[in-house]
Amino acid sequence: MSNQITHYGNKISVFAQRTNIALHEVNAQYTHCEVDFENKPEWLFKANPATAQIPAITYGGPVVPFDQPSPESAKITESIVILEFLADLFPSSDLLPADPVERAQVRFFISTLDTKFWPVMLAWMRGAPPNDMVDGAKALQALLSQEGKGPYAVGDKFTIADAAFAPMWARFRLITERDIGVEAFGKEQHISSAIRLLGVPELAKFRAYANRLLERPSVKATWYPEDCNEYLTRKAARFIKK
Amino acid sequence: MSNQITHYGNKISVFAQRTNIALHEVNAQYTHCEVDFENKPEWLFKANPATAQIPAITYGGPVVPFDQPSPESAKITESIVILEFLADLFPSSDLLPADPVERAQVRFFISTLDTKFWPVMLAWMRGAPPNDMVDGAKALQALLSQEGKGPYAVGDKFTIADAAFAPMWARFRLITERDIGVEAFGKEQHISSAIRLLGVPELAKFRAYANRLLERPSVKATWYPEDCNEYLTRKAARFIKK
Ligand SMILES: N[C@@H](CCC(=O)N[C@@H](CS)C(=O)NCC(=O)O)C(=O)O
Ligand SMILES: N[C@@H](CCC(=O)N[C@@H](CS)C(=O)NCC(=O)O)C(=O)O
Repeated sequence: MSNQITHYGNKISVFAQRTNIALHEVNAQYTHCEVDFENKPEWLFKANPATAQIPAITYGGPVVPFDQPSPESAKITESIVILEFLADLFPSSDLLPADPVERAQVRFFISTLDTKFWPVMLAWMRGAPPNDMVDGAKALQALLSQEGKGPYAVGDKFTIADAAFAPMWARFRLITERDIGVEAFGKEQHISSAIRLLGVPELAKFRAYANRLLERPSVKATWYPEDCNEYLTRKAARFIKK
Repeated sequence: MSNQITHYGNKISVFAQRTNIALHEVNAQYTHCEVDFENKPEWLFKANPATAQIPAITYGGPVVPFDQPSPESAKITESIVILEFLADLFPSSDLLPADPVERAQVRFFISTLDTKFWPVMLAWMRGAPPNDMVDGAKALQALLSQEGKGPYAVGDKFTIADAAFAPMWARFRLITERDIGVEAFGKEQHISSAIRLLGVPELAKFRAYANRLLERPSVKATWYPEDCNEYLTRKAARFIKK
């Protein structure tokens, strides 16, 4: 039996960037397998029996070719479960604080992100007005470390809360900087209003925090703007009225 | 500063039973505050600033009356975040295994529960046909400990996965045993078909596991069938066509 880690991800996947970031942060030795999740190979069900989605990790078991996951390895799936797993496996990495209260703050940030920010951002990416994103951003901002603490979501260490959020903000920035989706949804309605709404002074703290994440080496190393640009542009094009 | 724990819950709340169970399991010393969440007191926002929902825990800070939560205590909210917090605070309680892979299994069980079982059970409680619950139950059953292991969701210890699920199954049993909602939704459509669908031989392992949870002392001690009966009957009555 080994302690091998195989990571199934993709350059354009927001959820796989989360786990990619964490793998960088913990300095793990692992095999990366790039999966075309728009044309999923059959064997992916052996790595993620529940949904065959990415990200997925196989851990332990014999060392095998990535397209022949062994029945003997553990299958870890769902991006947040994987982030917690990596924090557990590499306890000295600081991906989770040691203090129970701070750990709860990290988890509550992630819960708020996944219930109040991402759903409205996803809706906006599909053409909904950007207005609801303001509430999501305010909910996150309310949780950020107090003045003098930080600079991360919870204190002075980069945690899984930051790893969970950074990929979303990277995409928000890309979309607004490159006018992705403008043909389908209109410059004013889609891009300009989003920039204006999230650019208000009340959200300065949120923006400073979010932009800071994009400077983190692990975030930069796992960010592929050209691939994402191509993917998101193609996705948005489905909404162009003919 | 103290290590005080104040728990805000209610006998009828499915989410507060989760945290109630965990508090029993870890043998915590705490103050319980019963909150009428249908008529929420203003001060509840001091215990749960984000949503004023229950369950909520205040931890630490000065010892204060429960209806005057101190700004100095930590506010821990969201049932799953609270379960993880109690597991962190009481590491010898076995609420979470020590092994990273088993911890991931616990978390994946909870994720499956909250995305694939509870939403369809809630829909059924509001009148939807019970059919989708079969898929939810099968998804959970697929994750249960292998033959010879168990008897809990992940191995031989009662974990937060079990604490998260038990309150749901207690309510399913109550509803089907007492014909709750029959006037609104019909005996055959609502009750008999649900009993039949979840009673199939293929789900025997799931049922044995779920029923076993209801024998756990912490689950029994936090289960108030008469209060739940009254509440659920009242909720279902809103759907009676006039
Ligand atoms: N809740 C999952 C979502 C994963 C997910 O949606 N993955 C996408 C790629 S970003 C995927 O695999 N899509 C292909 C499919 O759903 O079949 C997580 O957090 O890991
Ligand atoms: N996601 C929350 C849900 C909590 C919840 O829905 N609580 C209900 C009682 S079971 C409540 O407080 N309802 C009153 C309200 O939403 O205002 C958790 O898991 O703790």
